Amino acid sequence: MNDLLLKALAGEPVERPPVWFMRQAGRYLPEYHVTRAEAGSFLGLCRKPPLAAEVTLQPLRRFPLDASIVFNDILVPPAAMGMDLDFVQGKGPVFSDPLREVADLDRLKMPSIAEDMPEVLETIRLLVAQLDVPLFGFCGAPFTLAAYMIEGSGSKDFRHAKAFAYKHPAAFARLLDMLAEVTGQYLLAQVEAGCAAAQLFDTWAGDLSQDDFQRWALPYAKKALAPLAGKAPRLYFSRNMGPFMGVVQQVEADAYALDWRVDIAAARKLFGPDVPVMGNLDPIALFGPDELIREKVHSIIRAAGPRGHIFNLGHGVGPHTPIAGVKAMVEAVRDWRW
Amino acid sequence: MNDLLLKALAGEPVERPPVWFMRQAGRYLPEYHVTRAEAGSFLGLCRKPPLAAEVTLQPLRRFPLDASIVFNDILVPPAAMGMDLDFVQGKGPVFSDPLREVADLDRLKMPSIAEDMPEVLETIRLLVAQLDVPLFGFCGAPFTLAAYMIEGSGSKDFRHAKAFAYKHPAAFARLLDMLAEVTGQYLLAQVEAGCAAAQLFDTWAGDLSQDDFQRWALPYAKKALAPLAGKAPRLYFSRNMGPFMGVVQQVEADAYALDWRVDIAAARKLFGPDVPVMGNLDPIALFGPDELIREKVHSIIRAAGPRGHIFNLGHGVGPHTPIAGVKAMVEAVRDWRW
Repeated sequence: MNDLLLKALAGEPVERPPVWFMRQAGRYLPEYHVTRAEAGSFLGLCRKPPLAAEVTLQPLRRFPLDASIVFNDILVPPAAMGMDLDFVQGKGPVFSDPLREVADLDRLKMPSIAEDMPEVLETIRLLVAQLDVPLFGFCGAPFTLAAYMIEGSGSKDFRHAKAFAYKHPAAFARLLDMLAEVTGQYLLAQVEAGCAAAQLFDTWAGDLSQDDFQRWALPYAKKALAPLAGKAPRLYFSRNMGPFMGVVQQVEADAYALDWRVDIAAARKLFGPDVPVMGNLDPIALFGPDELIREKVHSIIRAAGPRGHIFNLGHGVGPHTPIAGVKAMVEAVRDWRW
Repeated sequence: MNDLLLKALAGEPVERPPVWFMRQAGRYLPEYHVTRAEAGSFLGLCRKPPLAAEVTLQPLRRFPLDASIVFNDILVPPAAMGMDLDFVQGKGPVFSDPLREVADLDRLKMPSIAEDMPEVLETIRLLVAQLDVPLFGFCGAPFTLAAYMIEGSGSKDFRHAKAFAYKHPAAFARLLDMLAEVTGQYLLAQVEAGCAAAQLFDTWAGDLSQDDFQRWALPYAKKALAPLAGKAPRLYFSRNMGPFMGVVQQVEADAYALDWRVDIAAARKLFGPDVPVMGNLDPIALFGPDELIREKVHSIIRAAGPRGHIFNLGHGVGPHTPIAGVKAMVEAVRDWRW
């Protein structure tokens, strides 16, 4: 078993940082589209463990990566709570019945993981039987899930979600509490099924104002991560963490996945040498020439320092990404020697 | 003449912060739509000084604001450089002929402000003759304009623009130099026509990685602001400044417009008491109840402190914004007393 990831997460010395990347199983790979077509739909792919395991393994066949992440979608828990989830071509995830009034919360049920969303656990069991790298489990964070559930889809400004919080703070807190409970149990179940680490994706928390981030994102992310304490390393990610670096450690994660805008050297100085960080190449750098990718990769590794750094992109890899760029990134990390 | 804005920008004591807001003339006002219809098109509105002056004045008739900003669009300079600009319903600005290859730069000409974009100067002259508050001129920053010109429109990831920079750094630098020259002269002409202050909008710079921000945004924004030194207070804005707070002062602006995510108290501590800041209410807070708006406004004023603070939103006001929310914000600022 390749133990580079776990060593880096433990702050132990490593020759080079481990490398994997967010959304490494996905649309930039032609073989993904084949399996996706076989599954019939995106949600069908998430819900058919042999196919979900297959797409999880695809990037590992192309690139010598040091970690894997189970194929799944962050919106599976809201769907299991009773919301009607669909994936619309060119628009991404859509809830046909967004939560817009306080009374809409009554439609939500507390899901049973075993009964309402067991598929990811089966996918994890299939994967750990054949992987020789650690497997990540993951989940959307409470604020990010609530934002999707109220908005009904992605958004430029999340005005429905924010307005709901401003108009109905008690109901919004109730929704976030429910989501923290569900996501905490969901992450725990993934670790118990065999995941070696877990990542909480608070994608949209980075669009909140400073006070709202501290009120609506932090405490619920912390609550979602709490059940995993001591059971597996817990990583916290937001798509835009820079404005919140001074307070983000209040989520009490074991490590932080930094988006591409963050100055990784400054982050390490602020957090201290004992807090591992992951990241943080701009995914769009993969559209550049090999030499530029290599230079940027090595500059990030140098700035992050020799202990407690996992190399990753600063956000998920995009569907148009050239595979040659991904290859150049992975090779540049593997060529590094401390 | 109301001198509250200029006092605050000079760091002089004020009873309460001055208040105005970005995009205060715009689609959230019904009277704007009437004038916009009369103009026939969005660009037509920018290019007809009496109508552009009319929409500039509209918010001042509704709210007792302490500053005005001339109605114009940041993409007027690229259009004057020879690009075909159109505004498409629901999609925003679109260039039909984006710059995708190095040779495309040959299509650009160095515009004459007097001949190719004189309209805003006429609008400014019409306005200063009747305004009793200071008037802002403004311009898009070089990186942001280049990003639009290459991408052809707004974008989630600006992958064409970033890839152009990665593949053709010398040509990209040439484009940015040209834009810094044009925008610097354009801002200077606006000040000479009567504007009391100038703001540089580097909207998309906040999506750059740390190294790219320092390479592609900072030096060219600095160059664009340089011709105005000592002539009028110069403000720099990016839609996401949080990750770059440690370096942004290298643009050498006189004041910084902070987006809504930035911790304004931390910003003031970092910049020091002599650097004025503007901001930074989340524009979506205006969708909340009056008491919440009042609480958030007062919390920002308290955190910013008694000198060198101009109250504003942390980004432009959106088209769906309730006018009652705007009114509550302006009243809350005006009710404050130091």
